[in-house]
Amino acid sequence: MKIIRQYSEKAGLPPGKVVFVGEQKLRESKIHIIQYNKTHVTESDVQTIDEAQSLVNKSSVTWIDIAGLHQVRLIEDIGKAFQIHPLVLEDIVHTSQRPKLEEFDDYIFFVLRMFYFHDKKIVDEQISIILGENHVFTFQERSGDIFDPMRERIRSKKFRITKQNSDYLAYSLIDAIVDNYFVILETLGERVESVENDLLLNPSTNILQEIHTLKREMISLRRSVWPLREVINKLDRTESALIKKPTRIYVRDVYDHTIQVIDAIENYRDIVSGMLDTYLSSLSNHMNEVMKTLTIIATIFIPLTFIVGVYGMNFEYMPELKWHWGYWGIWLIMVIIAIVMVFYFRKKKWL
Amino acid sequence: MKIIRQYSEKAGLPPGKVVFVGEQKLRESKIHIIQYNKTHVTESDVQTIDEAQSLVNKSSVTWIDIAGLHQVRLIEDIGKAFQIHPLVLEDIVHTSQRPKLEEFDDYIFFVLRMFYFHDKKIVDEQISIILGENHVFTFQERSGDIFDPMRERIRSKKFRITKQNSDYLAYSLIDAIVDNYFVILETLGERVESVENDLLLNPSTNILQEIHTLKREMISLRRSVWPLREVINKLDRTESALIKKPTRIYVRDVYDHTIQVIDAIENYRDIVSGMLDTYLSSLSNHMNEVMKTLTIIATIFIPLTFIVGVYGMNFEYMPELKWHWGYWGIWLIMVIIAIVMVFYFRKKKWL
Amino acid sequence: MKIIRQYSEKAGLPPGKVVFVGEQKLRESKIHIIQYNKTHVTESDVQTIDEAQSLVNKSSVTWIDIAGLHQVRLIEDIGKAFQIHPLVLEDIVHTSQRPKLEEFDDYIFFVLRMFYFHDKKIVDEQISIILGENHVFTFQERSGDIFDPMRERIRSKKFRITKQNSDYLAYSLIDAIVDNYFVILETLGERVESVENDLLLNPSTNILQEIHTLKREMISLRRSVWPLREVINKLDRTESALIKKPTRIYVRDVYDHTIQVIDAIENYRDIVSGMLDTYLSSLSNHMNEVMKTLTIIATIFIPLTFIVGVYGMNFEYMPELKWHWGYWGIWLIMVIIAIVMVFYFRKKKWL
Amino acid sequence: MKIIRQYSEKAGLPPGKVVFVGEQKLRESKIHIIQYNKTHVTESDVQTIDEAQSLVNKSSVTWIDIAGLHQVRLIEDIGKAFQIHPLVLEDIVHTSQRPKLEEFDDYIFFVLRMFYFHDKKIVDEQISIILGENHVFTFQERSGDIFDPMRERIRSKKFRITKQNSDYLAYSLIDAIVDNYFVILETLGERVESVENDLLLNPSTNILQEIHTLKREMISLRRSVWPLREVINKLDRTESALIKKPTRIYVRDVYDHTIQVIDAIENYRDIVSGMLDTYLSSLSNHMNEVMKTLTIIATIFIPLTFIVGVYGMNFEYMPELKWHWGYWGIWLIMVIIAIVMVFYFRKKKWL
Amino acid sequence: MKIIRQYSEKAGLPPGKVVFVGEQKLRESKIHIIQYNKTHVTESDVQTIDEAQSLVNKSSVTWIDIAGLHQVRLIEDIGKAFQIHPLVLEDIVHTSQRPKLEEFDDYIFFVLRMFYFHDKKIVDEQISIILGENHVFTFQERSGDIFDPMRERIRSKKFRITKQNSDYLAYSLIDAIVDNYFVILETLGERVESVENDLLLNPSTNILQEIHTLKREMISLRRSVWPLREVINKLDRTESALIKKPTRIYVRDVYDHTIQVIDAIENYRDIVSGMLDTYLSSLSNHMNEVMKTLTIIATIFIPLTFIVGVYGMNFEYMPELKWHWGYWGIWLIMVIIAIVMVFYFRKKKWL
Repeated sequence: MKIIRQYSEKAGLPPGKVVFVGEQKLRESKIHIIQYNKTHVTESDVQTIDEAQSLVNKSSVTWIDIAGLHQVRLIEDIGKAFQIHPLVLEDIVHTSQRPKLEEFDDYIFFVLRMFYFHDKKIVDEQISIILGENHVFTFQERSGDIFDPMRERIRSKKFRITKQNSDYLAYSLIDAIVDNYFVILETLGERVESVENDLLLNPSTNILQEIHTLKREMISLRRSVWPLREVINKLDRTESALIKKPTRIYVRDVYDHTIQVIDAIENYRDIVSGMLDTYLSSLSNHMNEVMKTLTIIATIFIPLTFIVGVYGMNFEYMPELKWHWGYWGIWLIMVIIAIVMVFYFRKKKWL
Repeated sequence: MKIIRQYSEKAGLPPGKVVFVGEQKLRESKIHIIQYNKTHVTESDVQTIDEAQSLVNKSSVTWIDIAGLHQVRLIEDIGKAFQIHPLVLEDIVHTSQRPKLEEFDDYIFFVLRMFYFHDKKIVDEQISIILGENHVFTFQERSGDIFDPMRERIRSKKFRITKQNSDYLAYSLIDAIVDNYFVILETLGERVESVENDLLLNPSTNILQEIHTLKREMISLRRSVWPLREVINKLDRTESALIKKPTRIYVRDVYDHTIQVIDAIENYRDIVSGMLDTYLSSLSNHMNEVMKTLTIIATIFIPLTFIVGVYGMNFEYMPELKWHWGYWGIWLIMVIIAIVMVFYFRKKKWL
Repeated sequence: MKIIRQYSEKAGLPPGKVVFVGEQKLRESKIHIIQYNKTHVTESDVQTIDEAQSLVNKSSVTWIDIAGLHQVRLIEDIGKAFQIHPLVLEDIVHTSQRPKLEEFDDYIFFVLRMFYFHDKKIVDEQISIILGENHVFTFQERSGDIFDPMRERIRSKKFRITKQNSDYLAYSLIDAIVDNYFVILETLGERVESVENDLLLNPSTNILQEIHTLKREMISLRRSVWPLREVINKLDRTESALIKKPTRIYVRDVYDHTIQVIDAIENYRDIVSGMLDTYLSSLSNHMNEVMKTLTIIATIFIPLTFIVGVYGMNFEYMPELKWHWGYWGIWLIMVIIAIVMVFYFRKKKWL
Repeated sequence: MKIIRQYSEKAGLPPGKVVFVGEQKLRESKIHIIQYNKTHVTESDVQTIDEAQSLVNKSSVTWIDIAGLHQVRLIEDIGKAFQIHPLVLEDIVHTSQRPKLEEFDDYIFFVLRMFYFHDKKIVDEQISIILGENHVFTFQERSGDIFDPMRERIRSKKFRITKQNSDYLAYSLIDAIVDNYFVILETLGERVESVENDLLLNPSTNILQEIHTLKREMISLRRSVWPLREVINKLDRTESALIKKPTRIYVRDVYDHTIQVIDAIENYRDIVSGMLDTYLSSLSNHMNEVMKTLTIIATIFIPLTFIVGVYGMNFEYMPELKWHWGYWGIWLIMVIIAIVMVFYFRKKKWL
Repeated sequence: MKIIRQYSEKAGLPPGKVVFVGEQKLRESKIHIIQYNKTHVTESDVQTIDEAQSLVNKSSVTWIDIAGLHQVRLIEDIGKAFQIHPLVLEDIVHTSQRPKLEEFDDYIFFVLRMFYFHDKKIVDEQISIILGENHVFTFQERSGDIFDPMRERIRSKKFRITKQNSDYLAYSLIDAIVDNYFVILETLGERVESVENDLLLNPSTNILQEIHTLKREMISLRRSVWPLREVINKLDRTESALIKKPTRIYVRDVYDHTIQVIDAIENYRDIVSGMLDTYLSSLSNHMNEVMKTLTIIATIFIPLTFIVGVYGMNFEYMPELKWHWGYWGIWLIMVIIAIVMVFYFRKKKWL
């Protein structure tokens, strides 16, 4: 719904107009730069994009991380300095894109979505990546910590990443995002299990609400991961010279991970669907049990009540009423009727 | 149904016969012309198509907007003047086409559908576009305001559009129509949310009717948007020289928007399907509650009524009737039975 | 079922054996010939196929219409005279084929199905077309009137058809058949609407039967139209020299119409499925209402009946019975109980 | 289940090991040979495969029919004499293969399945065909009569088959098997119709069992026919020189028949699914009717029983009891109450 | 769930890091080597991978089997010695991969899954295979006995395997794993049949639980077998020189087996779905029967109880009470009412 409202507000604006659409999550945009090659690593925070531009060179990989997208001016400056297409800039600040990959002559543009839990609800955030020959841009809504382990690896200089080109950096960023999906899936899986236990022990009415919430979250997650699969598949098959051959095998690896995420989501969806069936048939079972109790009580006592009614009649000539053992005889008959009925119900497996 | 009736009326007519099929929405057809290039913009209303034809030239883009399609003669004149295929003319005035794209040697023909709300119902209207080398035709049933922001942009001369060819104009028209879908989706989304709230707070019978209405509207919307996706995909892959390379990236952008419209519709459909399930199981829950109440009242009082029946019998020899505490003793027994039953129901979680 | 029985009767016969399978609908086969070119039109009824063969020539289009397929000998003669493959002849007289297109070196063979209403039921009939260089064969089970408007157009010499080759004639025949589908769909649509109204106003049991009949008719219609779509698609993509370039755009037009027929059928199927849901949940609603009434009456009166039972007991010592206001007091208590219960049910929204 | 058990028994054996898997249906394997060309036909029964091998020559087509597959030695001899791949031999004697086609340099190997009724159940049997340049092998579990009409046609020398190559013989065999499917479908269709009638007239509980049996048989049939479609499609597109051009059109014909078989199965499946729905909603309808009866009886008599209970109370001061018309007045009141209720139920359409 | 937790623990680690993920199933890793060619077979257990490497030569096939994957060091040594890509090593020790095939210049890497029963539950284990020019690696979590029949065949020197290259060994390993699926399917099939019998004879509540367990196991099995199909299909179409032409036909054979496994799983899934329907409608039937009993008892006795209530009233003027045959007359009337009702129910088929 939110996405639609944002889009409908943009209707009528010219295409390529850079308008921030979303919720501002940082007070001020920050530009953080890490530059590395096999031998050295330097880090800096800069104020303007011109500083960043002057740093980029052919002998090292420059990772320019922009956190906070509401300062549209900054994004437009990047567009001018690095000759980025206006539609790309529009997509970067329009924070409700589906995952996608677009190839240009000098760069590849990715939109990805990151998930995290907020107030026990799954929320997502857009992360855009621009992969150039010697530099990589990342655009985040907040200065998240998801890329911190990567920064550590670069700083330590001990890992493969510092010996590779910018494409390996872009791959590593995507890999970090996909790895994060497993963290989300674990929490989701725990909730599925918890609902499943409740279902057996304590099938209350609001469990239905929870099942539907889970189902909807699965669907929303799935809707982000399926296009991601397409993105990575496209990246694997791209003919762009920006993606070097040794990186391709890593791309296939992250593709496998995406498939596993999809598999896990499908699996949870099956489980949740099964839970719905179980819930409905447990309701139906419960109803059956209630009905049976009613039937047994009613069918035993209705005939007996009729009998006692008979001897409550005030006819003048009713010979049984005069008999000495009449009262106890009636009791005997009623007990026999009750016992016969109980046996009948036992035989029918109703009791 | 309406579409089918219209088609069935046309059965037997020769193909390519230009017969207006639809509802007349304007008294008279209007021809509005905007002509622009990088340096100047001129606008005029003309009476005949010959005037329009004389205006078209190679140094500027001419946008000829025809509002009102019932004057079949005018459409036929356009066909002759601009050498448009008779089947295209037939499709223009037959206002219940599916979105489609047809390539000819000299022009590309688009049929699109625009949605708007009328009496709280979604209605749609056909918009046909013919893209030529230096001119663009638009055919609308009414003189809608959906293209007004675009006209403003052309007049202001400040935007990209005046620096581009006719293909960019055609793209901008399609973009405006797709953007308008988000406005419709927003309203639809609000109705979905409102029904969803009603469902939880006040599940009346006529909610089912509303859910079915929503479902059907989704289906009808979906039926128009899916072929639109095909249209734009075809436009992206076309080899026609009419679509210049710089425009293609914009076409991909509008393609992404179409995918997002489809995504939103699918999302709403899932929600609506879920609501149906919720409604049906809430009915079933309600039934259960009613049944339980009946069972509890009946199972408590049926045995008690039997007991009081017993002591209403008129046997001469019934020793209990003579006992001084007999009456109060029976009350005591009945209270105990009732309490035991209530405890039993509590234990069974029926109360 | 009928089709299957016919096929199972043919099991064991050699392939290519021309055996009429179907129901004879005309007493005698008729051969009607229309021959036309830009300048003249001639019509004749002939007795033997040799007469027809002698008429065919390169300077005009010859349309040979055969009505009635049970005279197998005639079909075999046509096969010999025009060198038609035995399997084609077999298919022509085996009147339960799926729509299909088969290309041969000298001719293209089409099987199409025409629908009409008979006794308020949809029945279908096979129409085979053989398109040759200068002639077109049509094979019908009955001398239907579906092609009459076309004959009129040819006779009047005013329409495009007389200026075109045999391929345009074949196209026109297919177009006439597809147009006829819209007539059928209109009737079907009216029945869907009528059932829909009944469903809301008067949901009787036999409506279920009607819904299932509609559903099955949709399925059978769909089963004929889907392969038709394939046929026309194949015709559009054929490399056969028999289909001239100007005709191809008309083929695409009829393809669009077929898509619209499919769309309409799918739409009706959705509506019919929705009706089934509505019907079942209206049943369930009805049941709920019945149950509620029972519960309310029972839960109000069961406790009251217990109370009056109490004072029907014959204990000697029952102080209340002696009280002067005892009787009216009990009435008061019972009225209060009833009112409290009614309020309780109101609060629970059961009343 | 049976298939799986057979496979699981084979687990651990080396691939290509010729082990008979299935049920022995003949006491002894028989080898029957028909050899024909345009001018003469000879038939013989031989004991060893060497005799058969010596008969094969280039000037005629040799059809070698092996009935009974349990004599593994014979199959191995054929493999050696005609250089058949061990995996093919393994498949021939493993009588639970899916239909398949495998092309080798010198021959094409088909596995097909034939259906027949046994004890009112559908059972199937594997028929393997090896098509060589001048000979065709058929391997059957029993000496079935399905190929008898073909043998007659060969003997009579009057039909197309004797003028054609071995590929036409193979086609004819496949055609005979597919034709036989229609015979099966007819019987199945009759059972579907019979269940359908029972459903309306006499919906007993065991009809559910029958519907499920039908459903499962459809599924098993479908599972054999879908791969058959693939087999014939593959045969149509094969580049093997063994399939001559004139035969290809016959292959397409048998392909059409297979599609018709699939169509018929899908049709029956739809009908059977519909029957399940009808059955369940007829159950639900029945339940509704039962409930209504209960409700009407109960809601009419419960209040009346309360009233008579009131005047069964033993209060000393109950003025109505003394009234002369009290008794008849109460009757009047009760009759009025009953009539009012009946009218109410009529209005509500419950009666 | 387990898989997801393992993945989420790995999030943040650099790609290609060899970390054992799974459950340690052996105390110590074992390296077993079999080396064979046409003439001789040698077997040995080695401690370090260097010993293994020195054994590999061009004149024989070396099968190096590693059981136990927790000794990450060993795996890394293999990687160095045989130049295996780090991502491959990572996949080998990460024991929750989907089946996959990856081609490298010098080797092909397979991940497969083996199923077995443990505590009546299906568990699975990862088996990785690396196929090189003259050697094959197998990596198992436990030293399973599934490959023992193959070892016997190699030792006996009598079978095809010793005359073939390493690709035939790899094929044989895959074939052994797929054959093992049939053993699993047999056990599963027996459980399906047992649940099916219980369903008819003894439909208790916990059968629903069993059906859901079966359903979930089917789904999990299916999820492993579908990618396996892709793996084998890819192997069939590979252009790698490692797969020789004669082996390809064997690959197609194992592909057919995989299809049969999938078929069997789909078949069981259909049966299990059918069982769910049967269970639910048997519940519903049961409910109907219970309801009918209640209705019959209640509708017979409620009117009778009313009648006896009437004559229990204490009106002074009730003429019937004085009649000599009043009491017996009332009995007669009540018996007649009861009989009429029973006949009515019989007619309605409720009894």
